Amino acid sequence: MKQDLDRLMEERGLDAAVISGNTYGNPSLIYMLNGANVSNGDVIKKRGEEPYFVHSPIERDEAVATGLQLINRSTYNLAAIMKEKGDFLAAHVEFYRRLFDDLGVEGRVGFYGMDDAGAAYVFLKALGDALPHVEVCGELTQSLIEVARGTKDAAEVAMIRESGRLTCEVVRETIAFLRRHRVEDETLVTEDGSPLTIGRVKQHINHLMAERRLEDPEGLIFAIGRDAGVPHNAGNPDDPIRLGQSIVYDIYPRRVGGYFFDCTRTFCLGYAPPEVEKVYWEVKACVDAVIAATEVGKLTRDLQQLTCDFFKERGHPTIDVDEKTDEGYVHSVGHGLGLAIHEEPFFSGLSNNQRTVQPGHVFTVEPGLYYPSRGFGVRIEDVVWVDENGAVHNLTDLPYELVVEME
Amino acid sequence: MKQDLDRLMEERGLDAAVISGNTYGNPSLIYMLNGANVSNGDVIKKRGEEPYFVHSPIERDEAVATGLQLINRSTYNLAAIMKEKGDFLAAHVEFYRRLFDDLGVEGRVGFYGMDDAGAAYVFLKALGDALPHVEVCGELTQSLIEVARGTKDAAEVAMIRESGRLTCEVVRETIAFLRRHRVEDETLVTEDGSPLTIGRVKQHINHLMAERRLEDPEGLIFAIGRDAGVPHNAGNPDDPIRLGQSIVYDIYPRRVGGYFFDCTRTFCLGYAPPEVEKVYWEVKACVDAVIAATEVGKLTRDLQQLTCDFFKERGHPTIDVDEKTDEGYVHSVGHGLGLAIHEEPFFSGLSNNQRTVQPGHVFTVEPGLYYPSRGFGVRIEDVVWVDENGAVHNLTDLPYELVVEME
Repeated sequence: MKQDLDRLMEERGLDAAVISGNTYGNPSLIYMLNGANVSNGDVIKKRGEEPYFVHSPIERDEAVATGLQLINRSTYNLAAIMKEKGDFLAAHVEFYRRLFDDLGVEGRVGFYGMDDAGAAYVFLKALGDALPHVEVCGELTQSLIEVARGTKDAAEVAMIRESGRLTCEVVRETIAFLRRHRVEDETLVTEDGSPLTIGRVKQHINHLMAERRLEDPEGLIFAIGRDAGVPHNAGNPDDPIRLGQSIVYDIYPRRVGGYFFDCTRTFCLGYAPPEVEKVYWEVKACVDAVIAATEVGKLTRDLQQLTCDFFKERGHPTIDVDEKTDEGYVHSVGHGLGLAIHEEPFFSGLSNNQRTVQPGHVFTVEPGLYYPSRGFGVRIEDVVWVDENGAVHNLTDLPYELVVEME
Repeated sequence: MKQDLDRLMEERGLDAAVISGNTYGNPSLIYMLNGANVSNGDVIKKRGEEPYFVHSPIERDEAVATGLQLINRSTYNLAAIMKEKGDFLAAHVEFYRRLFDDLGVEGRVGFYGMDDAGAAYVFLKALGDALPHVEVCGELTQSLIEVARGTKDAAEVAMIRESGRLTCEVVRETIAFLRRHRVEDETLVTEDGSPLTIGRVKQHINHLMAERRLEDPEGLIFAIGRDAGVPHNAGNPDDPIRLGQSIVYDIYPRRVGGYFFDCTRTFCLGYAPPEVEKVYWEVKACVDAVIAATEVGKLTRDLQQLTCDFFKERGHPTIDVDEKTDEGYVHSVGHGLGLAIHEEPFFSGLSNNQRTVQPGHVFTVEPGLYYPSRGFGVRIEDVVWVDENGAVHNLTDLPYELVVEME
């Protein structure tokens, strides 16, 4: 949470943090801007002090909505600095030198926010070389801002709940839409007699999302049969929807510009083959086992290991034994979500993963079993929230139904 | 264009380029992936050779759609590397060491694609230190990939044209929607008798975009009166739509996951005050003057200077004289657009801007005059394409009409 920033900076030995860039695709910057609709800038926070926002002059109205202390970038007369320095890199460094001087930024300074990798390297190296009182710091994983974002405050949980409510509505409406179709030769057909395809279903889902002001910047998975057996296969638009095939429907939209939700249901229309049914209820039992084992202080890799062990005991190949397996359990059991679809906490099974479950964490629980060679896959995904008292709440209001009967 | 990459690498003395990250919000990586729907990976291109794509094992199906030479990341057994190295940074470096060894990547290597700034700095510094045969390179502006992206091939122009066709439809439909409303006391009213607000208009615009599978990840400006006088003011949702006020309508959507368009029209409903009318036709004449002056080889800053001079001659304050001005002409005259809404070429007026107009460039021409203190602003924005023969095509199929009569 934002209120943890000073403590997290202290733990990291940071005197200041600079979060920069364009806001688009930059959740750490968006996070610091409290929902204001600006396109770029720098948030500068010294430990123990309120942050500043250095904004573009043409966004001075929108910058007010950040609630931060404002600095209009035009006060630094970049044109004059550029003329003086001649070179873009030197001018860029000089601008930050003056800004840091004015704000008293020195010591260990962490840099955050999305930038082109090579550009960030060149700039931060030059900045560190030019500013003797500044030590440039960065964090490859579990960075200051990522960790703060990983635990949600009440307002953020409310926004995720609302995204969840709308997303679950879309899932229910999608299933109702499928059930309304006629069936010919085990295939769903539209009013004009042509087979209902995945492309048509996705069109309908897009419409359901648009009505609710949900957007899916990262796509949508609606995959059937063999494709359902490959976790990130988004589904072939031309495939017809047939009875008795496993359908993996994974939807991860956000409210426009806001917080994501993420849920997956697997189902078969009409009937389910016995081997799919067996695997389905194993995956469902695994969801329950993981949620039951979730508690504050638990290592997230222990939840990944629990999942691997759960499936191993039932005879499935798992990724902890064979990293290259394409069959069985092949991914990690969850991920945090918020302003990004994948964020802290992560559930890597690697031994160096020391992350623990914390109050305020919101994450997916999404075990799955994949058998592309046998033409099916099953994944079930709920979102849980660990509240301030450590109680675990499932935010996904959807039933677990393998077989969806046609009307 | 992609076909220029080898030449651009040669100019920069680069032996290889690595374009990495998550695809979301990462147009340089998306560009290299030829439209494939994958979520992350590394594209590695040695000069004079076809690129490789190092992909996630669970995205092996989608990776095929890149058409690139594929390397499944799981062949490097990251879990074993992590166990061996113990530390995430060291393991990350070791993975790239092995990968570069296998592909023969050495010499001057440029790194591109969006990453957390501090993380990129820490990683690339460690990589450079660990790999004696690799010199880590980066470019703060006009990077290899940005410059390649800046000139569009025929397929890209076709996609921008299609985004433009749909965007112009939305603008026309929005104006038709406004014209259908009743007017009471100079204010547009809805069927239930309440004032039509900017929020309601934006809802309708969102609906028009959703119908066309356009998305606006960066928002939408529909600002009236004084707010129209501040370039990036997105408009106050509660403001009623009134006659005789300047409305700046700036819309910059993309087709889902694809290419952006960007256009602005300013209009007044019913009638226009004389001072708005005067300024409107000055801005319109400036659009024409900039397009007429556009030719291959022209410095983009000369087009910015032309715009400043054009408005200065007509008595307006301009940003080249006073960087801090909030009134008159206060921004740059255009920007390239493509997979990002703002990309090469840029039109900075600074003396170090040596960019020239090139065949394949697609960019906005968007002079504007802003007088928030007098309660209005005017901007007109078209998109032009410079074809392979240097001919300039206006891709914006919309009239210039200041006064929109109510029905």
